Amino acid sequence: MSQLKTTERTRVKRLPDRGRHDRETVNAILDAALIAHVAYEKDGEPAVLPTAHWRTGDTLYIHGHSKNAMLHAARGKPISICVTLLDGLVLARSGFHHSINYRSVVIYGTARDITDPNEKMAALKVFTDKIAPGRWDEIRPPNAQELKATMVLAIPIEEASAKIRSGPPVDDEQDYALPVWAGVVPIDRIAGVAVPDDRLPKGTPLPDYIDHFNRMGR
Amino acid sequence: MSQLKTTERTRVKRLPDRGRHDRETVNAILDAALIAHVAYEKDGEPAVLPTAHWRTGDTLYIHGHSKNAMLHAARGKPISICVTLLDGLVLARSGFHHSINYRSVVIYGTARDITDPNEKMAALKVFTDKIAPGRWDEIRPPNAQELKATMVLAIPIEEASAKIRSGPPVDDEQDYALPVWAGVVPIDRIAGVAVPDDRLPKGTPLPDYIDHFNRMGR
Repeated sequence: MSQLKTTERTRVKRLPDRGRHDRETVNAILDAALIAHVAYEKDGEPAVLPTAHWRTGDTLYIHGHSKNAMLHAARGKPISICVTLLDGLVLARSGFHHSINYRSVVIYGTARDITDPNEKMAALKVFTDKIAPGRWDEIRPPNAQELKATMVLAIPIEEASAKIRSGPPVDDEQDYALPVWAGVVPIDRIAGVAVPDDRLPKGTPLPDYIDHFNRMGR
Repeated sequence: MSQLKTTERTRVKRLPDRGRHDRETVNAILDAALIAHVAYEKDGEPAVLPTAHWRTGDTLYIHGHSKNAMLHAARGKPISICVTLLDGLVLARSGFHHSINYRSVVIYGTARDITDPNEKMAALKVFTDKIAPGRWDEIRPPNAQELKATMVLAIPIEEASAKIRSGPPVDDEQDYALPVWAGVVPIDRIAGVAVPDDRLPKGTPLPDYIDHFNRMGR
């Protein structure tokens, strides 16, 4: 496994057994999730907003309108990005040992604004095909004006780590005798039945990739 | 509806129609979600971590171990908290108009460390009963040592706003003629079949609240 260099802020200090520092684990979590939360500085104070993300190799991408205030504040500055997948509720016999099963990744880095139109176009194709593999070749691609109106930021996945909690509750030994139900309630994200747009011509076939979300490495 | 005062940073600038500034909407999103992302300052740079959250009235709570580095860095300082619910993939006829249906809330504020044991205990009860109503009365509550080892931060829900995107794709007029499927793939979070702990005495009944997650106002 390819290991990421651990820094003071990516080392998992509390419960270090939950920390993962290999690229395979980090990448798998990033690829299974659609939404990242970006922390950036806004007027000298921390701010956080959600955005979609995608990955190519060791680079994470986020994007938005070229007038997006978060992207403007984030580019070229130190930011932090977190991706979290909620996997289950851990119901223990004591309040103290209740927990949550999850997988998360935190990245620290500086985001580069992609200005080359070809590089931008290539990145957007990867994003579309992450959500719906093959869709890029079916839709109308961005024209020059739309490409200009789209800002794409690239963040190296270098100062990064993952954290995972899985499995049953861990109770204090004397609490196992308590007559209360304990265990895990698994939580999953699923795509439901696709809702065709009202203006879709009758008979437009539903593409094969429509339920790809349900196979996104969860 | 009770309106929140809009400040420069809670005003939704891009696509202002998506902004919501009433407490009912903000509270409903906070209550339907389990995980928040907290942006805080760490060694002069923005950092973000996931954590569970809950609400009582106009106050949002987060908690963790008393040695939790994020909570220590966050308390008494300006922080930002974001809660996001992913509702669907919006597949448009052009790449540019692809979108995501979501509900999110952003809060700016300063977190207060709850030191009074009774106030802390009352807050933890609300959290447990958010996940599993009635469970608090069945489990072993925190003892004095555990309560001391638990840090609970309270953030006023005052400088806050919600943002919502829902509904079908909005395409450019000339793109509606394109022969590509368009519409929404709804995404839902569901609780699966509860997994009893291996050490649970045979015959321990499954509580009624076990699938409460599936009724959490989604």
